[in-house]
Amino acid sequence: MAATSWEDSVKSLKGVILDMCGVLYDAGEDGGTPIPGSVEAVKRLKASDLQVRFCTNETQATREVFVAKLQRMGFDICVSEVFSPAPAAVAVLKERGLRPHLLVYDGVVPEFDSVEKANPNCVVIGDAAEKFSYQNLNDAFRVLIGLEKPVLFSLGRGKYYKEDEGLNLDVGVYMKALETLMIGDDLVNDVGGAQHCGMKGVQVRTGKYR
Amino acid sequence: MAATSWEDSVKSLKGVILDMCGVLYDAGEDGGTPIPGSVEAVKRLKASDLQVRFCTNETQATREVFVAKLQRMGFDICVSEVFSPAPAAVAVLKERGLRPHLLVYDGVVPEFDSVEKANPNCVVIGDAAEKFSYQNLNDAFRVLIGLEKPVLFSLGRGKYYKEDEGLNLDVGVYMKALETLMIGDDLVNDVGGAQHCGMKGVQVRTGKYR
Repeated sequence: MAATSWEDSVKSLKGVILDMCGVLYDAGEDGGTPIPGSVEAVKRLKASDLQVRFCTNETQATREVFVAKLQRMGFDICVSEVFSPAPAAVAVLKERGLRPHLLVYDGVVPEFDSVEKANPNCVVIGDAAEKFSYQNLNDAFRVLIGLEKPVLFSLGRGKYYKEDEGLNLDVGVYMKALETLMIGDDLVNDVGGAQHCGMKGVQVRTGKYR
Repeated sequence: MAATSWEDSVKSLKGVILDMCGVLYDAGEDGGTPIPGSVEAVKRLKASDLQVRFCTNETQATREVFVAKLQRMGFDICVSEVFSPAPAAVAVLKERGLRPHLLVYDGVVPEFDSVEKANPNCVVIGDAAEKFSYQNLNDAFRVLIGLEKPVLFSLGRGKYYKEDEGLNLDVGVYMKALETLMIGDDLVNDVGGAQHCGMKGVQVRTGKYR
């Protein structure tokens, strides 16, 4: 792409939505480390005329906890600027009168506090990490197979992601596992999701893309 | 099918291969229970002119342990009459000079005693049940993604099976999960496998088929 057409493209922008993990920072057991230059890049974007919003496929923590982590890394960012899968799922669940069986990381459970969960009629899975035990996956499977119309919501469809110590399986792999057993809905996130809405998707070559 | 053609079909038979779990017995935590009439049926078949062999997708125990369990249920059966996935996999591994990373149930590990396992160049998964932890699946994934030509052998492709207390996820679901990450070989077992060899496959409506 020539420099002029890139500049033309930028001029037509009203705002930017930034993906975060693998773009602004690399995940890790210590909470992760900012990618060099990204704190400054966010600062410059926010000083421009562009509206800046952040989206994340983070499903291991509430937005509040997640944003606090980013703030500790030095990012100038607040909760209302961040879009994440769990609050979006909560909105859909309420709209459709669905009561989820949750297979998610402990840290993200509070996002679902306002949702009725007794007598579940759907399953929600997130990046549950160690909680993806055989027993927990079996429990989710038994809920699904017991439903007349099984509905599975996945809070992401990534297959793996990078942490400081190496690559880890992501929720998309477990979504695929449960999908082989049924036909289900799923939420779509990340760059692919943005493109489906007719938005411009820009993929950066950091993070897991090797 | 008219009675005469079924009888004609039987007359042309040289032998029978019987599937076991869900056909001769239902699995369960106590080792399982014989399906009514099956002990007697095996006895009558063995008293006939037919060659009788047994195949199983059992990948949680060695053939020796498995056969001993069937004997305790009252079946007249010996180890040399039973075909099971692990010994078949061992033969293929040796033929191809493959060194497996094992993600299998502890009970079946001794079947792989004669196979070199250091510096693995493939992954073998079986019905690992509780051993399908996030950590163990991640370890298998990391072996696969580190290989130039990732090879995954699955000791089965069943999606779930019935135990006395309910339905459980089977190895096929985890095979699918890892398959979404790579292109791999897999062993084919059970009725489907027999049909691919041009043999007559007969499926019974016991076990998980509801």
